[in-house]
Amino acid sequence: MVKVGIIGGTGYTGSELLRLLLRHPRVRIAAITSRAEVGREVASLFPSLRGRLDLAFSDPEDDTVLAGCDVVMSATPNGIAMTHAPGLLAQGVRLIDIAADFRIRDVALWEQWYGMKHACPELVAEAVYGLPERHREAIRGARLIANPGCYPTAVQLGFLPLVENDLVDLSSLMASAISGTSGAGRGAHVPMLLSEASESVKAYAVGGHRHQPEIAQGLAQAAGRPVEFVFVPHLGPMIRGIHATLYARLKDPSVDLQGLYEERYRDEPFVDVLPPGGHPETRSVRGTNLCRIAVHRPRGTDKVIVLSAIDNLTKGASGQAVQNLNLMCGFDETEGLDDIALFP
Amino acid sequence: MVKVGIIGGTGYTGSELLRLLLRHPRVRIAAITSRAEVGREVASLFPSLRGRLDLAFSDPEDDTVLAGCDVVMSATPNGIAMTHAPGLLAQGVRLIDIAADFRIRDVALWEQWYGMKHACPELVAEAVYGLPERHREAIRGARLIANPGCYPTAVQLGFLPLVENDLVDLSSLMASAISGTSGAGRGAHVPMLLSEASESVKAYAVGGHRHQPEIAQGLAQAAGRPVEFVFVPHLGPMIRGIHATLYARLKDPSVDLQGLYEERYRDEPFVDVLPPGGHPETRSVRGTNLCRIAVHRPRGTDKVIVLSAIDNLTKGASGQAVQNLNLMCGFDETEGLDDIALFP
Amino acid sequence: MVKVGIIGGTGYTGSELLRLLLRHPRVRIAAITSRAEVGREVASLFPSLRGRLDLAFSDPEDDTVLAGCDVVMSATPNGIAMTHAPGLLAQGVRLIDIAADFRIRDVALWEQWYGMKHACPELVAEAVYGLPERHREAIRGARLIANPGCYPTAVQLGFLPLVENDLVDLSSLMASAISGTSGAGRGAHVPMLLSEASESVKAYAVGGHRHQPEIAQGLAQAAGRPVEFVFVPHLGPMIRGIHATLYARLKDPSVDLQGLYEERYRDEPFVDVLPPGGHPETRSVRGTNLCRIAVHRPRGTDKVIVLSAIDNLTKGASGQAVQNLNLMCGFDETEGLDDIALFP
Amino acid sequence: MVKVGIIGGTGYTGSELLRLLLRHPRVRIAAITSRAEVGREVASLFPSLRGRLDLAFSDPEDDTVLAGCDVVMSATPNGIAMTHAPGLLAQGVRLIDIAADFRIRDVALWEQWYGMKHACPELVAEAVYGLPERHREAIRGARLIANPGCYPTAVQLGFLPLVENDLVDLSSLMASAISGTSGAGRGAHVPMLLSEASESVKAYAVGGHRHQPEIAQGLAQAAGRPVEFVFVPHLGPMIRGIHATLYARLKDPSVDLQGLYEERYRDEPFVDVLPPGGHPETRSVRGTNLCRIAVHRPRGTDKVIVLSAIDNLTKGASGQAVQNLNLMCGFDETEGLDDIALFP
Repeated sequence: MVKVGIIGGTGYTGSELLRLLLRHPRVRIAAITSRAEVGREVASLFPSLRGRLDLAFSDPEDDTVLAGCDVVMSATPNGIAMTHAPGLLAQGVRLIDIAADFRIRDVALWEQWYGMKHACPELVAEAVYGLPERHREAIRGARLIANPGCYPTAVQLGFLPLVENDLVDLSSLMASAISGTSGAGRGAHVPMLLSEASESVKAYAVGGHRHQPEIAQGLAQAAGRPVEFVFVPHLGPMIRGIHATLYARLKDPSVDLQGLYEERYRDEPFVDVLPPGGHPETRSVRGTNLCRIAVHRPRGTDKVIVLSAIDNLTKGASGQAVQNLNLMCGFDETEGLDDIALFP
Repeated sequence: MVKVGIIGGTGYTGSELLRLLLRHPRVRIAAITSRAEVGREVASLFPSLRGRLDLAFSDPEDDTVLAGCDVVMSATPNGIAMTHAPGLLAQGVRLIDIAADFRIRDVALWEQWYGMKHACPELVAEAVYGLPERHREAIRGARLIANPGCYPTAVQLGFLPLVENDLVDLSSLMASAISGTSGAGRGAHVPMLLSEASESVKAYAVGGHRHQPEIAQGLAQAAGRPVEFVFVPHLGPMIRGIHATLYARLKDPSVDLQGLYEERYRDEPFVDVLPPGGHPETRSVRGTNLCRIAVHRPRGTDKVIVLSAIDNLTKGASGQAVQNLNLMCGFDETEGLDDIALFP
Repeated sequence: MVKVGIIGGTGYTGSELLRLLLRHPRVRIAAITSRAEVGREVASLFPSLRGRLDLAFSDPEDDTVLAGCDVVMSATPNGIAMTHAPGLLAQGVRLIDIAADFRIRDVALWEQWYGMKHACPELVAEAVYGLPERHREAIRGARLIANPGCYPTAVQLGFLPLVENDLVDLSSLMASAISGTSGAGRGAHVPMLLSEASESVKAYAVGGHRHQPEIAQGLAQAAGRPVEFVFVPHLGPMIRGIHATLYARLKDPSVDLQGLYEERYRDEPFVDVLPPGGHPETRSVRGTNLCRIAVHRPRGTDKVIVLSAIDNLTKGASGQAVQNLNLMCGFDETEGLDDIALFP
Repeated sequence: MVKVGIIGGTGYTGSELLRLLLRHPRVRIAAITSRAEVGREVASLFPSLRGRLDLAFSDPEDDTVLAGCDVVMSATPNGIAMTHAPGLLAQGVRLIDIAADFRIRDVALWEQWYGMKHACPELVAEAVYGLPERHREAIRGARLIANPGCYPTAVQLGFLPLVENDLVDLSSLMASAISGTSGAGRGAHVPMLLSEASESVKAYAVGGHRHQPEIAQGLAQAAGRPVEFVFVPHLGPMIRGIHATLYARLKDPSVDLQGLYEERYRDEPFVDVLPPGGHPETRSVRGTNLCRIAVHRPRGTDKVIVLSAIDNLTKGASGQAVQNLNLMCGFDETEGLDDIALFP
């Protein structure tokens, strides 16, 4: 059994991580820290965990708590994991940061978008971007994982076959994506009240969203050169789910897109390419680590439309973190990740 | 491995049964029948099952299909299981009917409420009412299980400690319960459209709902004499979940209700009595086989209020059917039923 | 044109009041105050009002602002209107308090439930409870109106015909009611996030809700003696709407309930008694000042079930306040209140 | 008072039309036809109309019913209005078709997309496309109006300033739009059940949606030459609302987009251009005839993003039809269309 510690388990990525790890056959949750809730029973915060977890929140300042773990997973807001990383790595503890501290390789760019000074810029280059479909081997040996953001997971998995194979005009990339409210976290914000967010859709942060540079970095790396990527996130009236609709101009409209996608993801346990003409629904991946993708050629055009659906808290956050944990520990990659989405 | 056959797996109890059985470690799904979908891949009907089930619908008329099973579970509309029951039992196949064909012991009463002639009245007396918290031992040895209705599960579990112990005025029993739309099944009915059911609540069938006699029968059996039970079901704007609010007049208001409930359900794996002052939420049991219960004494009155929450498709239907299957097969009662509710 | 001032127009009752008054043909909104938003354009806070209102929030401390109004309507949290009431009345300004400051005639009881000292207990006796269906004449001449709570409106209108006519056992009264999240106001509370409140139902405050004494007071006044009233409020996954399900034991089960209700409310412009067997839906009253009611006799019992549906922000708050304003100003009672609910 | 007849008032555009016309000060509803519901009280079909409408459905075959009207508005499925048009026009009755029979000027193209033979191709050329922001003068004098589709209204209003002024690459036009379920009508379709559509998002008809040619026709007409337009519609978990996100490549990125949009729509009563950086929400236009628009320039790119929000049943259908009615009758264009969206 691998001993796993969780930093900051009071939010939605934390509760999703607990849900997954509690039923993982090869993991023991050794500690969960929370600055605000030290000593409180974890299950008292999450009614869904009553009877399933007999553990209280520990103090994140108590270094001995996490030092005894094999792997620590950080489910805190941005800017926290980087304060723990140097100490944990020095003690031989591997770290998976579900937040954004190690996602952007250009530290100055990171500091600009996240509005803070990076606490350990020297570790950024070492961190492995935890998208197994692209960096599987590096993840296996990594000490430090930058778990991808939710939108970046859906968008990159959708675009990768195209940009890896130089099939699209890299100045034409656009993603219009919609997320459920859980993506905004458990903070008490008025726009996320049911009274405000239900029965409505709106775009937000069209002027600039932090996931834009993360996605652009990943696509540029896959393409081998810079890309021009327009990102339009939306808020939708549901709890979980991201649906991303991707658009690009094909260099050669005669390419076999369906075959390309099926081939690219043939051996991926968590990417499901739908049959031709398919339309993935977010509910079909709810609570699972799956990304379902469909690829379309709008008739009479030289464009491609890719549809990509994930659960923002699972494949878009905590599920992917467990997938990375499995890889790092040499487990079967799907261990603990075999849930089937509720239907309906 | 137990070989399980499913009759009528195209609706919501069917898909919930598939979700549970596919991950059950001691069950193999041998066949799924559907008159309308013979030959069609099951997964093509349920996007959530893509990649998880390689089985096509069989013809229910083909007797050999189900005859080779150890247990058959019927997830059809009312009136179908009773046509299969005599044949299956004669062939040594045990049957769990998730619909209502064997729930009402008074055949004339059943025929009146369900508007049809019973196909095998002689089997009604043999059928065991599959509420494990009340009939566990009988279930273990049963050939034929009448799996309880969704409302009846929530309401009976809430009332049992009171009526079993003669603590309430049996002419004062009332339940006001609300269900998500999945309780109405996958039929295409206008009132269940999102456009009609969302952002609204209404009561329905106040003049008489089929679950009223089922509940009254169960409570009378527990009390040892007839009860007067008023039932008011409501439709709520959500997919899953039943919340039942129970009301009764206490004979002796000084009784320790909290202790009573905790004691009654101490060893029950799927009934969770909340601490004093608790309020169960349906989302905390979504997709699980749990019934969470809280008991309250409104101040200055001689009344008791019990709150009871289940997932109508799990503890209220297919999960309870799997619990019964586990009992019938001598498995651990919780096998395959350890899901934790998504939060959020 | 009547000059109306609004105290505290930043919440949901405030925005509903603005929506109604802006289209009221005989009202001019003279001022809206907000301590926190002085000087800010009102429409900047409510996207729905862009282009419809050219007014900025005034300082509630500036006495001249409200003193020039004919009527002031207070849409603040509890405890604010009572600090304004003596000054306004002294200046000849009439006051409608949409909050609870003047609803409970027993000041000690009010202070116990609301956890604060009453600022002007001497005015409580003068205040008229603004339920027009019961106190229409007193409202016409009132200087100070205590606008009823949302649950109290739905529950009292449902019970009144029974208790006014001594038809039910007054120790058997129970209401199980469910409200949308807008009833909790625009405060940023975690349990009201869409992620937490959607796709779930729960009861709350079963141990004691402030509307219980308000309803008990109203029913006792209608009955002419004390009542024993059990109240179970629930939170439902929708924005607007209250559905109340009322239960009582009939003294004489042979009474013509349908005729009783139709007769009682024959001339009421905002109470709609459905035909026999009806089930009011909250969506059919959304955004309107209507209360729709149906009355049922569960077969084989001596009980009565009444179903009552309102929009908690309209008939349950701001719409009823406008109805009271119309009465106080001698306008047609329905002026400005002719909206038809959106369908769907 | 203008006498208005409605063909096919049993669906959602019909009920929205009734809601608007019943409160229109210069309209009298003379007749509502329904083949299936002849003789039935209209209000019995729409609980929201109880007490507001004393009219029964007429037989659409009875020519005298509609012949006596000044204007007939058709809220039927596609293919019905065209069977009434020749007769009505011959009798001097003007016709507004809310469905699609007269929207596509190329009859062969229409027949291909709608899968039927056109009943009166000779009238297609005469029909005026009822988008007042583009064809106001022609609408005033029209006998026959083709009321635009819901997506086409949101998308064209968003693109018009760009294409009218030759500012974008006409081969780069793309719209990703999401609609509530009411857009699918009141038919009983399984995918529109709350159980299926709630808590999920999916794209649909990416291979080809009937609104694509309608939009392409309108944009081409505004541009003066053909356009290449990619359209991706989505289904969202809400009742009403369309949010369209538009993408195009700017020919000259230095253009003042905000000024352009404000100038273009300065005098439009129903188009609201938000301040720079704005994000329109569908709930802010729910139940109103407004289209709210914001225009963005993603940094570091030569692209433009336009956000456009309408209520699919109001500005996207029946509200726009009333706007056209007002123009045809010489009324103030906003008559009967002054609703403020519910908030929350």
